[in-house]
Amino acid sequence: MASYTLGLDYGTNSVRAIVVRVTDGFEAGTAVWNYAHGDKGVVLSEDPNLARQHPADYLEGAERTVQAALAEATANDTAFRPEQIIGIGVDTTGSTPLPIDADGTPLAFHKDFENNLDALAWLWKDHTSIAEAEEITALAAQEHPEYLAKCGGVYSSEWFFSKILHCLRAAPEVFDAAYTWIECADWIPAVLTGNTRPGAYKVSVCAAGHKAMFNADWGGYPARDFLAKLDPKLGTLRDRLHDKAYAVDSAAGALTTEWAGKLGLPEGIPVAVGAFDAHLGAVGSGIGEGCLSKVLGTSGCDMMVAPGDRDLPDIPGLCGIVKGSILPGMYGLEAGQSAVGDIYNWFVDYIQPGGPEAGSHEALTEAASAVAPGASGLLALDWNNGNRTILIDQRLTGLILGQTLYTTPGEIYRALIESTAFGALTIINRFEEYGVTVERIVNCGGIAEKNPLVMQIYADVTGREMAVSRSGQTCALGAAIAGAVVAGESTGGYADFSSAQQAMTGLKDHVYKPNPEAHAVYRELYTLYRSLHDAFGLPEWQGNLYSIMKRLLDIRQAARKEVAR
Amino acid sequence: MASYTLGLDYGTNSVRAIVVRVTDGFEAGTAVWNYAHGDKGVVLSEDPNLARQHPADYLEGAERTVQAALAEATANDTAFRPEQIIGIGVDTTGSTPLPIDADGTPLAFHKDFENNLDALAWLWKDHTSIAEAEEITALAAQEHPEYLAKCGGVYSSEWFFSKILHCLRAAPEVFDAAYTWIECADWIPAVLTGNTRPGAYKVSVCAAGHKAMFNADWGGYPARDFLAKLDPKLGTLRDRLHDKAYAVDSAAGALTTEWAGKLGLPEGIPVAVGAFDAHLGAVGSGIGEGCLSKVLGTSGCDMMVAPGDRDLPDIPGLCGIVKGSILPGMYGLEAGQSAVGDIYNWFVDYIQPGGPEAGSHEALTEAASAVAPGASGLLALDWNNGNRTILIDQRLTGLILGQTLYTTPGEIYRALIESTAFGALTIINRFEEYGVTVERIVNCGGIAEKNPLVMQIYADVTGREMAVSRSGQTCALGAAIAGAVVAGESTGGYADFSSAQQAMTGLKDHVYKPNPEAHAVYRELYTLYRSLHDAFGLPEWQGNLYSIMKRLLDIRQAARKEVAR
Repeated sequence: MASYTLGLDYGTNSVRAIVVRVTDGFEAGTAVWNYAHGDKGVVLSEDPNLARQHPADYLEGAERTVQAALAEATANDTAFRPEQIIGIGVDTTGSTPLPIDADGTPLAFHKDFENNLDALAWLWKDHTSIAEAEEITALAAQEHPEYLAKCGGVYSSEWFFSKILHCLRAAPEVFDAAYTWIECADWIPAVLTGNTRPGAYKVSVCAAGHKAMFNADWGGYPARDFLAKLDPKLGTLRDRLHDKAYAVDSAAGALTTEWAGKLGLPEGIPVAVGAFDAHLGAVGSGIGEGCLSKVLGTSGCDMMVAPGDRDLPDIPGLCGIVKGSILPGMYGLEAGQSAVGDIYNWFVDYIQPGGPEAGSHEALTEAASAVAPGASGLLALDWNNGNRTILIDQRLTGLILGQTLYTTPGEIYRALIESTAFGALTIINRFEEYGVTVERIVNCGGIAEKNPLVMQIYADVTGREMAVSRSGQTCALGAAIAGAVVAGESTGGYADFSSAQQAMTGLKDHVYKPNPEAHAVYRELYTLYRSLHDAFGLPEWQGNLYSIMKRLLDIRQAARKEVAR
Repeated sequence: MASYTLGLDYGTNSVRAIVVRVTDGFEAGTAVWNYAHGDKGVVLSEDPNLARQHPADYLEGAERTVQAALAEATANDTAFRPEQIIGIGVDTTGSTPLPIDADGTPLAFHKDFENNLDALAWLWKDHTSIAEAEEITALAAQEHPEYLAKCGGVYSSEWFFSKILHCLRAAPEVFDAAYTWIECADWIPAVLTGNTRPGAYKVSVCAAGHKAMFNADWGGYPARDFLAKLDPKLGTLRDRLHDKAYAVDSAAGALTTEWAGKLGLPEGIPVAVGAFDAHLGAVGSGIGEGCLSKVLGTSGCDMMVAPGDRDLPDIPGLCGIVKGSILPGMYGLEAGQSAVGDIYNWFVDYIQPGGPEAGSHEALTEAASAVAPGASGLLALDWNNGNRTILIDQRLTGLILGQTLYTTPGEIYRALIESTAFGALTIINRFEEYGVTVERIVNCGGIAEKNPLVMQIYADVTGREMAVSRSGQTCALGAAIAGAVVAGESTGGYADFSSAQQAMTGLKDHVYKPNPEAHAVYRELYTLYRSLHDAFGLPEWQGNLYSIMKRLLDIRQAARKEVAR
């Protein structure tokens, strides 16, 4: 009798559940539910930086999708019955912290706070905390540079302490009413296992390590003194944070009778410690030493692992280096591009060259396919949403050069694709400059699935083969793999991730191979890209172009304020 | 009884005739005829650089338009009769040389050459002679730097000797059959006055000075030795070129009986020496000391004059400094932008954002009007067709930076307009850096007539008032003014250009005044523009970005050849 596991994947707009057969990774059933609150699941306000989620959606989403996925699996796979589910894994967005009371109940569920946006979960892309991020970065640079060294040198406004510090200042009534704050990735497993009470739930090393400067080397979260200097109340909060964090091979607990009933699953099965979507996505795409796992969607995530028993240098420009954040016992390395598909979407949705039909992704892809490498004379920087790796600078903007009076939309579309490929190559080079060799690349995400032209250009630009993950939902699959590992061999699961991945992940048959002539052209174009990249991206670079994009953003902000006045 | 003059304006696609009352510049009649040969008057071939015109169109065009303009004037103005026309002026494109035989008949009219494209007039925008232009520039830099000093340091592929040298090499049968070559601006007056025979016609100092390195200081055209070094046959041609050149206050001769009959005009009236359209356009817009005359169309021309009795330094980056080329006795200074309206046209015609309606000039102008200065965060370089002044470099390309994921077509359209305004300011600054003060600016051409947003942005960027010429056809009006001056006071004309211009030119009532707040923003944006301009435009600038656009053009050329193979 085959065993199955369940993966729960909490995204920005929806949650997905899948039922996976542990012997071969067959995805027997899947279901998606769009969150009920806000605009496509994101609660917005007049402040364009604000982005929140309602934790009630997380609970309703679990019930709806698990039941539906089980129903589909039962229909699809005659051998399947829900009792064969042996474990559960969970991945979420992050950093998405929420304030909870001493029982682990979200403040958002309290009558007093039901209409308070600051009591909701602060979604990863909430940017209300820019000032606090700068403050934290400045203090850490002065007093604890080691905190920053593991997260690329800059503490982000998207992260745990920036958000909590902002809440403390902007909504002290919420901060004061909260007993502590918990990452969404920790809260879901805590709910399913009845361990929501502070002290009882397990903290994910993926979330804490990448977003909250947690590191066993300095005793977990940042020192009490450090946080108290930002605000004394933050020092008090530090006392309520946990001292230990866990990788996804640990169980957060066992599924409660109550939740087993709600979901239609056997009670007592283990639920793995949570992790972020990109990290479990890397697991689901088969990551291991030497493998670069690329998630290509609206933005791009680049994940690698490195042996945990050897010294790894700090790699400047990476978003994070955290032991155990992807695979237990190995360093997890996270890099990324702030926009990939979003740049193509901008051209299609905002510029719409030639109108809706002529300017569709399909039509532009066809036109771009007819343009030979180098034949457009165009070169672009992929910075329309800033640059995550290797510059870690949100205050950067896009650039296109080489236009003539005859430049076509297809040529521009291709140049935009090429720019993201150049950005991808810059990340690969950065890994390798610091001794983390990229031996193979596995892509997943919407673009990898749907756009062969993009994948071929990535192969031609990087000069490397581009494989594509067999599964179209690698994050949920990675969560299901974690469920199989915490279930263990005794119930039909696996002793470790390596054997689980070998059985449950795979590649599509088609591999995109670099064309040598195209690669030769792109090698030369890439040197030009790097000249532009360094000129506009590095403050120390000669010529003072670095300040141009910054000044334009300042002028823009002033001009918009002037208009608003 | 009022006197009238006739202006004949030969453009790229059509010829225009106007009948003007000399007392007040009233335009009594006008007519336009589109050339019959080629594509909109331009004969093309498979070589995208080739652009020719058939001289038969010039003759047919004179007959058709003069007759029609006279008919319209007779209908419009009851006081008018053709016998009241006292003089004729002519302007043409240039450099547009054509090969002629010893009688001054174009080779194109010979049976043997009737199907030979190289026997036609080589239109100003013919770019087949790039290699020869580089060769001439290199030799002059070495042996006669003074030749280049008056034309901005680079001899262009669009100019007289580049074209003739290319013909000598690419079509020796045409070169050998020609007795000599004549500019279109010289040939039309020669035909009307029966003086087409070499030795008999008068050479325009405007054409010869700006395009053929003619300068009285070194005895006219370049030295025989110099030309013979390029090719011995070019030395032989030098012997057949004239030693003297004339300004537009000289008569090329008197209208022949034959042409008087064809045109319906009194025989014997004087025909002024020809000049280029932009130069007589400056005259028609009222140019004088301290006045910058801007022609804003697909490209931009910036003309000034300076006293001829004072020393004027060489001004680097100007296309030409020629005494008498605009107003007799004064230095004529020519600068320009390789593309103005053509950049806006590119965005509308090639990119067509949102489709034909949403992406029309009208719709984009409306959207761009709603964007405050600086509010887009965008900055562009106006180099989609290279840069004429101050860089004199055709191998430059466009650049736009500052794009986010939300940048709109209206913002880009405005940034493109702003980029051309920044280019215009760069030209003004260059004039003033060398002591030629710009006290007032008069605009003419299609954009000045039709697009108030562009004119307002020009005012705001430059911090100067933008006046617009009263006449919508300043080139033809300038030619008619030349006709009034060569006719002289005795027949009801004028003794000099100053009095003719005072009577015959004027401004529209509305003057665009700079908005101080907008100007303050643009002052800052302009310093950023100059940083980009210098970084990508100056080889000596630190940082080596100068090579990027050049390398992209090389790679593009190689890639297109590869595809063609």
